[in-house]
Amino acid sequence: MENFVLENHTKIIFGQDTIGQIGSETALLGKKVLMVYGGGSCKENGIYRLVQKSLSKAGVAVIEISGICANPVLKHVREGIALARGEKVEAVLAVGGGSVIDSAKAICAGVPAEHDVWQFFRGKKGIRTTLPLACVLTIAGSGSEMNGGMVLTNEESARKMGIGNKRLQPVVSILDPGATFTVPPDYTAYGAVDTIAHLLEFYCNKEARQTPVQDRLMEGVAQTVIAACEKALLEPTDYDTRADLMWCATLALNGWAAAGLGRVGFPMHLIEHSLSALYNVPHGAGLAVVIPAWLSWQAEQQPERVGLFFERVFGIPEGDKKDNALQGIDQLLAWLRRVQCPTSLTELSIPASEIPKIAENALPLAKLWRLRDYTQPVIEEIMHRCR
Amino acid sequence: MENFVLENHTKIIFGQDTIGQIGSETALLGKKVLMVYGGGSCKENGIYRLVQKSLSKAGVAVIEISGICANPVLKHVREGIALARGEKVEAVLAVGGGSVIDSAKAICAGVPAEHDVWQFFRGKKGIRTTLPLACVLTIAGSGSEMNGGMVLTNEESARKMGIGNKRLQPVVSILDPGATFTVPPDYTAYGAVDTIAHLLEFYCNKEARQTPVQDRLMEGVAQTVIAACEKALLEPTDYDTRADLMWCATLALNGWAAAGLGRVGFPMHLIEHSLSALYNVPHGAGLAVVIPAWLSWQAEQQPERVGLFFERVFGIPEGDKKDNALQGIDQLLAWLRRVQCPTSLTELSIPASEIPKIAENALPLAKLWRLRDYTQPVIEEIMHRCR
Repeated sequence: MENFVLENHTKIIFGQDTIGQIGSETALLGKKVLMVYGGGSCKENGIYRLVQKSLSKAGVAVIEISGICANPVLKHVREGIALARGEKVEAVLAVGGGSVIDSAKAICAGVPAEHDVWQFFRGKKGIRTTLPLACVLTIAGSGSEMNGGMVLTNEESARKMGIGNKRLQPVVSILDPGATFTVPPDYTAYGAVDTIAHLLEFYCNKEARQTPVQDRLMEGVAQTVIAACEKALLEPTDYDTRADLMWCATLALNGWAAAGLGRVGFPMHLIEHSLSALYNVPHGAGLAVVIPAWLSWQAEQQPERVGLFFERVFGIPEGDKKDNALQGIDQLLAWLRRVQCPTSLTELSIPASEIPKIAENALPLAKLWRLRDYTQPVIEEIMHRCR
Repeated sequence: MENFVLENHTKIIFGQDTIGQIGSETALLGKKVLMVYGGGSCKENGIYRLVQKSLSKAGVAVIEISGICANPVLKHVREGIALARGEKVEAVLAVGGGSVIDSAKAICAGVPAEHDVWQFFRGKKGIRTTLPLACVLTIAGSGSEMNGGMVLTNEESARKMGIGNKRLQPVVSILDPGATFTVPPDYTAYGAVDTIAHLLEFYCNKEARQTPVQDRLMEGVAQTVIAACEKALLEPTDYDTRADLMWCATLALNGWAAAGLGRVGFPMHLIEHSLSALYNVPHGAGLAVVIPAWLSWQAEQQPERVGLFFERVFGIPEGDKKDNALQGIDQLLAWLRRVQCPTSLTELSIPASEIPKIAENALPLAKLWRLRDYTQPVIEEIMHRCR
């Protein structure tokens, strides 16, 4: 096991009918908050009203910014920062999924900064201080509700960049699985795919010493997500299934799964970010296309890790790791198809002739993330393996 | 999954050669600390010197209390409280295993209290404020390094009681697996047994909804501990094995394993505390005797849980859960014997005629812990199943 520091102060309030606690929790952070949300689905499913009622009861004044989209963009974040400054809000409240939470994090970091917020994403400036953040999670997948990561797209330069800082961690996040009952099938699956990608990137991306217990944790989360996703598509309002998906997404990326693995990277996310930045592909859809391609490449670098993962997760009898890796990839591909995810560039309407452009777009992020192996030719080779 | 709140702010610094960081970490808590440690093994293995050097370098003044024993007693804690008050220390530093850390926690809670510290353990007073606590862990097992629990024996009344409060959580804990290389074989095994007991109490003690992902986490930790313990006895200075044991012990009782399980109890600890209180049996040795007995009783109440646990952990082919539970108990008993743990009251030199007294001693703690099913006859019945 490699040395690690683990520090995660986010308070998780998980469960049925917990959204009503957001008022009293937010009141601990400030008397006036900026509420960040998306396209209005939270108004249709009643969550907006629940949150407003709870904030009002706790005496918290609310300023709003809405319309945050999937693959959230710099423009909205800049608007949010200006609004938060003008209104002198003391805290930020995100009501949504990863896109909303990440936008809220960028606002939290940007408000006290003396420079433009994009400087953080270029790696030019470090985050020293932030506004406190509370979250009500409504889509499972990103894990952003219990970590210090954030991803944002600069729509002018078509770059989707991601950074992490422990100061970005939410102070409190409310996870009510019932809030995800109305997430449509495609985004339910995209969230599960995001979780699987996080786990695979940790599990198969290490050259360090074995960590038996962390392996078991990651396998367990993966097994649960794979089963729960199919069930959620059949029974979208089954509470326990939604609870599994929600908690697994948090577990995959809150620092626990990766503890002791040494330096880990996000090579599939690296490539997917190009797809999202250039073609506005939903993050989970892009990942679903990249995962089998990257795994087939990774199985040549680390057959023992890819093989072991699938032996354990799919119950493939122990044997030649390379063979089992390939068999596992086929089974994962079959699962992706069963949960109605795209698995080819064609399904994303991206011609293969775009591959050089996609690879080139990924290079600045590869540099920021220090993924030195991921050169233009390597990324192109992986992309050519997309089915 | 049942509703839960998860909040664990302890900063874990895990790894090789990390003890030298204790000075700078402790300096953040105060300029003068009370260092709590045990019988002096930390002087033999060099850890005492490492800690002192690091504290000195960071400019932290140190007052010491040593001689904390296994099954730590109220007398030492009262002495520590008087010393801490007299010297006006600002923080407490525990260097040891569960006994030392729990004593340090009791001192942290007792110093600002206006009443005797035992009042907390009787459930008569709540903990409102504490001195901050830092830990250097030298024996894996209790999990106390990342939770708010503490156990103390009142040697006058022969009661071993345990309570929990989030204010008792260490601010920081340093976990260097190398610090456990010199833990003798019996205490190495006792620590692993303690971890297994925590997991079994969670896994088999719920009447609530299934929690697939938590099940997988607990199974994974159990599998790892069982394998690592045997290996550590053969190769006590194998770093990765010691790292597995250490991290598994923390994982089993830091709130993560039990998240979503609903109200869980510690029935095996309840019974074991009587053995420790009355006969000063090492905690892990007492648990090794109680575990198979309790499991055989529990397998009649919840065959599906006990059976599933062993199917998953020992790879017993799926089948009749009651049969598999019994088969699993036999396998666990064989493992306990392989790691040289006592598995009968006889091996603890306790005659069966003592059983009524043991059960009676457990009743106040059963009341404090609200383990209503654990009446005198039930505890006696379980005790009679000890091999």
